[in-house]
Amino acid sequence: MTERVARAALSRLSEPGDTRLSTLVGTLGAAKVYALLRDEEDVAGVSTDVATRLRGLDPERELEAAGARGIRFICPGDAEWPGWLSDLDHAEPLQGRGGAPLGLWARGPLSLAEVCRSSAAVVGSRSATTYGTAVAADIAAYLANSGVGVVSGAAFGIDQAAHRGALATKGQTVAVLACGVDRPYPAAHKNLLDYIVDVGLVVSELPPGCSPTRLRFLSRNRVIAALTQGTVIVEAAVRSGALNTAGWALRLNRQVMGVPGPVTSAPSEGVHHLIRTRDASLVTRGEDVLELLSPVGSFLTPDARGPDRPRDALTEREQRVLDAVPLFRGASPGSIARTAGLAVPDVREVLTRMRGKSLVEGADDLWRLAGQ
Amino acid sequence: MTERVARAALSRLSEPGDTRLSTLVGTLGAAKVYALLRDEEDVAGVSTDVATRLRGLDPERELEAAGARGIRFICPGDAEWPGWLSDLDHAEPLQGRGGAPLGLWARGPLSLAEVCRSSAAVVGSRSATTYGTAVAADIAAYLANSGVGVVSGAAFGIDQAAHRGALATKGQTVAVLACGVDRPYPAAHKNLLDYIVDVGLVVSELPPGCSPTRLRFLSRNRVIAALTQGTVIVEAAVRSGALNTAGWALRLNRQVMGVPGPVTSAPSEGVHHLIRTRDASLVTRGEDVLELLSPVGSFLTPDARGPDRPRDALTEREQRVLDAVPLFRGASPGSIARTAGLAVPDVREVLTRMRGKSLVEGADDLWRLAGQ
Repeated sequence: MTERVARAALSRLSEPGDTRLSTLVGTLGAAKVYALLRDEEDVAGVSTDVATRLRGLDPERELEAAGARGIRFICPGDAEWPGWLSDLDHAEPLQGRGGAPLGLWARGPLSLAEVCRSSAAVVGSRSATTYGTAVAADIAAYLANSGVGVVSGAAFGIDQAAHRGALATKGQTVAVLACGVDRPYPAAHKNLLDYIVDVGLVVSELPPGCSPTRLRFLSRNRVIAALTQGTVIVEAAVRSGALNTAGWALRLNRQVMGVPGPVTSAPSEGVHHLIRTRDASLVTRGEDVLELLSPVGSFLTPDARGPDRPRDALTEREQRVLDAVPLFRGASPGSIARTAGLAVPDVREVLTRMRGKSLVEGADDLWRLAGQ
Repeated sequence: MTERVARAALSRLSEPGDTRLSTLVGTLGAAKVYALLRDEEDVAGVSTDVATRLRGLDPERELEAAGARGIRFICPGDAEWPGWLSDLDHAEPLQGRGGAPLGLWARGPLSLAEVCRSSAAVVGSRSATTYGTAVAADIAAYLANSGVGVVSGAAFGIDQAAHRGALATKGQTVAVLACGVDRPYPAAHKNLLDYIVDVGLVVSELPPGCSPTRLRFLSRNRVIAALTQGTVIVEAAVRSGALNTAGWALRLNRQVMGVPGPVTSAPSEGVHHLIRTRDASLVTRGEDVLELLSPVGSFLTPDARGPDRPRDALTEREQRVLDAVPLFRGASPGSIARTAGLAVPDVREVLTRMRGKSLVEGADDLWRLAGQ
């Protein structure tokens, strides 16, 4: 039995994120583990179930049947296997889950490794606000348009805004599910998922047909974090599952980024906590994310700047005079000259010139800033 | 002439934040500098003006006249002089200003050193939003109520919200002006400033009668930062003067804290930039500020937490079963037992118990999460 077939079989048998199995497979290889489990003597009466179920599987036929439905099984050794998923084997488990996936079941035309080589997760609250979904879609659109794949979980709220933002610019997006890739979950996102299958990629550790459970969501989150170079949390209440994804990104030394919101908004509380504890960097737009994901120095966000002001165009001497002109109640050129540390004739000349630019108002002896 | 009188005289002569003068005074003492300047020979014709003006001053009478109007001059050596203002003598100048003040003119019943020993600056944009002013007032009220003095600049927007928040809880507040303490600026804040004079403290480097200039605002900002243990920026557009105050707090190794807002709100842009570059810590409420200002470990903000959920009250075994129950389409106890890694009879028993708590629904052979 090949490694691929054994991994497919084991993925049917085990729960995603079970580190006992991933460690065993890492040490012995999947085919060997498969054989051991299948042939194991039932000493204490506990393994019967595993052995029985394994003997009942026909993984080769399952792979074939899945293939006929457009579902492929990607595993280590494949060209489109993202090698960096093995980082999961070196990270501490989180909430009892961990380890690299045995493989990923996938539907869609893109190459997983190619999309994810430069990618970001954009995730967040299912009960998002219109503010949150608008910002998530904007950031996802910017990233996708810049050639960064957008990975998310197809859930309500931020996740779906992220996918839609990426799709809207004809960018690349990957949905990672906590159930089989043939199961539209949530059901309301059937059209969205169908569209992603057409132009993007829908992947899952779970074989076709599997249902989502809370445990599977937790396991799924580690795959989202591991596939990407960084995770952007847009809105996450204090107990949001998105914080679990952030926790994985931290463990994996990926960038963790948070979009702030009003401090009065509950869906932003979890994000603010991440930024406050410096577990996450604050980002406000796609450019900020790109800067953090790019090699140091290769992409620097230009600082946001205010509109130009008339004072920007002044010479240094003019600025010194202007800084010394009172805001109200005029001052004499002599007083202004003392404040500015300049000679009185110079100050008179500059004041007259700046009156022409409507920066100051006044006559011979009393000058003040204009428009105060 | 005493140091006090000499300092008062020099404060009338010089612009605040002129490091040439503060360095000279630090080295020679104010009385000596005063004498030197007054008696200086007019070699090149440039110092005439200074000497003439100095000879025209009567600082003793001025101090007396100010005293009669309830204005005192606080300077080094006084019990209420905050010694930590000398940190300014060891910091790099910023935008051409720097150095400790020669003294501070003050009106109001509080002791400056006592208020500021435990204090925070709460500053921000003059063109603040209702969101910003509400948050500023809340934070100031919390701090004032916790015995932390609230220092600000009495400007429109965030500053006035900060003062009002502190006053609303009968807390201590200090307004630092860029003009004489007898000048209500802005004029619309006359009542506010009068009230602060009654119950708090209004201070300025500038002697009575002086007008505000842009230069004086920049100098004033360094005093706000230096008086306090930390500066909270609530809203600040990209070119807000509040960022100058933040720059001073950074130079002085004070805490710099920023309150986030919607990324779509221009008045929050400058704050987000400070947090993004890690120049500022993110704070969302007074507790966060207090935690950062308090000695390490003495005040720890309890993390915000979501409402309790039914699953919190479950045993670990019950949680394991619950995590393995599908969200839709029921599963058999056998399938759930495999996912959970528990024995089938145990799972049956737990499922029945949790059905009583309305956490799962189902009968003998098909179970799913309730309420999905």
